[in-house]
Amino acid sequence: MNRRRFARLTSLSAAGVWANGLSGLDALPLRHQTPSVDPGRLGERMSTLATFGANAAGGIDRVAFSDANLEARDWIAALLRDAGFEASTDFAGNLIGRKAGSETGLAPVMFGSHIDSVPGGGNFDGQVGSMGALEVATTLADAGYTNRHPLEVAFFTNEEAGKTGSRALVGEVEAFELDLPTASGHTIGEGIRRMGGDPDRLTDVTRAPGSLAAFLELHVEQGAVLDQDGVEIGVVEGIVGIMRWNVTVDGMTNHAGTTPMDRRADAMVGAARFVTSVHQIALAVEGRQVATVGRLIAEPGAPNVIPGRVSMTLEIRDLSMDRIEDLFDAFRDRARQLESATGVTYSFERFYLSRAAPTDLRIRDMVEDAATRLGLSSQRMPSGAGHDAQSMALLCPVGMIFVPSVAGISHAPAEHTDLDDIVNGSNVLLRTLLQIDERGLG
Amino acid sequence: MNRRRFARLTSLSAAGVWANGLSGLDALPLRHQTPSVDPGRLGERMSTLATFGANAAGGIDRVAFSDANLEARDWIAALLRDAGFEASTDFAGNLIGRKAGSETGLAPVMFGSHIDSVPGGGNFDGQVGSMGALEVATTLADAGYTNRHPLEVAFFTNEEAGKTGSRALVGEVEAFELDLPTASGHTIGEGIRRMGGDPDRLTDVTRAPGSLAAFLELHVEQGAVLDQDGVEIGVVEGIVGIMRWNVTVDGMTNHAGTTPMDRRADAMVGAARFVTSVHQIALAVEGRQVATVGRLIAEPGAPNVIPGRVSMTLEIRDLSMDRIEDLFDAFRDRARQLESATGVTYSFERFYLSRAAPTDLRIRDMVEDAATRLGLSSQRMPSGAGHDAQSMALLCPVGMIFVPSVAGISHAPAEHTDLDDIVNGSNVLLRTLLQIDERGLG
Repeated sequence: MNRRRFARLTSLSAAGVWANGLSGLDALPLRHQTPSVDPGRLGERMSTLATFGANAAGGIDRVAFSDANLEARDWIAALLRDAGFEASTDFAGNLIGRKAGSETGLAPVMFGSHIDSVPGGGNFDGQVGSMGALEVATTLADAGYTNRHPLEVAFFTNEEAGKTGSRALVGEVEAFELDLPTASGHTIGEGIRRMGGDPDRLTDVTRAPGSLAAFLELHVEQGAVLDQDGVEIGVVEGIVGIMRWNVTVDGMTNHAGTTPMDRRADAMVGAARFVTSVHQIALAVEGRQVATVGRLIAEPGAPNVIPGRVSMTLEIRDLSMDRIEDLFDAFRDRARQLESATGVTYSFERFYLSRAAPTDLRIRDMVEDAATRLGLSSQRMPSGAGHDAQSMALLCPVGMIFVPSVAGISHAPAEHTDLDDIVNGSNVLLRTLLQIDERGLG
Repeated sequence: MNRRRFARLTSLSAAGVWANGLSGLDALPLRHQTPSVDPGRLGERMSTLATFGANAAGGIDRVAFSDANLEARDWIAALLRDAGFEASTDFAGNLIGRKAGSETGLAPVMFGSHIDSVPGGGNFDGQVGSMGALEVATTLADAGYTNRHPLEVAFFTNEEAGKTGSRALVGEVEAFELDLPTASGHTIGEGIRRMGGDPDRLTDVTRAPGSLAAFLELHVEQGAVLDQDGVEIGVVEGIVGIMRWNVTVDGMTNHAGTTPMDRRADAMVGAARFVTSVHQIALAVEGRQVATVGRLIAEPGAPNVIPGRVSMTLEIRDLSMDRIEDLFDAFRDRARQLESATGVTYSFERFYLSRAAPTDLRIRDMVEDAATRLGLSSQRMPSGAGHDAQSMALLCPVGMIFVPSVAGISHAPAEHTDLDDIVNGSNVLLRTLLQIDERGLG
């Protein structure tokens, strides 16, 4: 039995009741006591959400702007209202539940995720964070908790195909995006209208930097690290930055029969040596950088012709943009060495950049502390995938909590996270939120 | 100045006249004297042939069964008749010129090549051997040479898209091939009828093994070895055998952001290491084997996804089929080693086999000797490309003579062979033919 399985069994007995005294806060009067989420209700809501857009494969087709997306949104809005939140859709189509705070002059604390899926998606990406946030809101209501800061629970528009909703809050959505088609059959602009928003008034939803006290997001890891290592909570250090290049390897197209081995400038061999080098360097140097060659096209691409050109993509991700550039320099240096060995040439053209979004150091500590107090194992880790928190980091301090994805499967019907882990993550979200609300970020 | 350029200049003075006494045979009476081909006439015929199907790129579109193919064929038939050969088209569409021999009971000696081109082809592949053979026939007529063996000059049907004509002589053309479309717009069967043949009577053209004394073919190298090394004549040791496999690399498709480097089963990396190994092994072991990965498809093929599967082709060519299999075993053994290092699996499925066709050892010596007597440099080499001689090797001893392809360019308008080299090759063909006719293969 690994650590996680063991911890889960021992912590289950405390689920659904008031926390069992692990936290020093628990000794304070009621408004300082730490409630726990209701696992039964949370599980039931996960199941209900999974009915909106359910497909035959056991997953969901609840792409942004689809009927299923709208219906699920309305169902959540009602539950928010039940929890005493004022629920409305902003011009970007984001559903936002608001509850005033007891102290004036404090900026709101926002938490949430998204309920749209990829086509043929699973039941956990976005949904765990959304139901976790909703459950936290309901738990607070049930506990009669009086929040100092205004609270906002956000269910962002179209995370999967462009993070439209969260990027609208940052003022990053560009005009051309509104005309982009989506899997719903509607353009993003049309989709926003379907949600009750108004694509012509997106600037009205823009938040000023500093206008929020913090943003928190619970999400499934979408990788296998927590599951494989038997760790229950991931303390996310940030969303990694991404750079992508097109790498072109130029050799000499030639007859595969009449060209001796020692007279070839084989672009396929040049590409192969580069791919191997990228993997070896990224594996060997310290750190959690990842580097991937995901696409490769060899021309002309016939069994009996030595390829004269190979085009491939190179992607590097890391929490540090400087480190990404250093790695790229190392790859390019290796390519220069390979040129003399293989007779091919390498050229590089960057075509994509996404800036890293580190989480707030203080919130990382709070998330870690919350896990510890709940008796949950945790580890710090980067998020290799993008999230709404990445946009929000431009506005305010953000924190992210990961829970395990079984076998790391994501964006597929087989995607799975155990309810125990969803409960754990929701309790960590709840405690972190309360900590910020009670004490601020100090 | 390299050896070839130098030798060419010194040998040019002897071109077009009787050989200059290099051969011991020259001391014998006229019928034993060795004539030389007429460079002016040969060059003129090369130029005329290039007009049939000439395209704007300076090359030719004279695909098999096209009007240009038929017109060129008729032009050649007339020249064969001028040289005292009886010219006719067989049921497979091969143009064959025949001249009886002076001795009864001897099997014919056949020589020739093909005049069809690939779409957008050049002016030398097939044409050098065809015009060389025609020039040899004319030279023999001019010299009043009395041949002991019957002579047959062959211009084979559809070499480029299936070696239909030469394979028909061997009885290898299968019924389904007749329905295959060709670049001419006609099926092979229809094309054969256009040539004046009869696809229903292909069995009538089949020759019995041993029914020919020998077959000789002059051809451009289609590789860069002779040109780069400054050698004038290639003594072809045979047409290499070819085996091709589909190689499938199975790993695990995963998110390129959320999967740490040390937890990947990256099919692209597995493929890259295999490609590198194939190249290194084929380069390192002694011999003239070639091994090529010409096609590679990575799935799913997105910059941000670790490929779960790569499909690629592996081709090995060598004069020895056993050696091809040994090499394949070495590649597969390496793949097995890589499996534990990379976490991927490799599977292999052979989808193509073409048997090697060694040339006759005695004819190799004769070709080499003829080159030496003409003051031409020569080297022994395999043919990496297929030729009609490959079919003919199933019927009789074959010999092949290569002349340099400038920069190894082939199947393109830029394909080029200097006239000097065409003259040299034709003289070697002539001398080898005379040697066989005079002395047999011993």
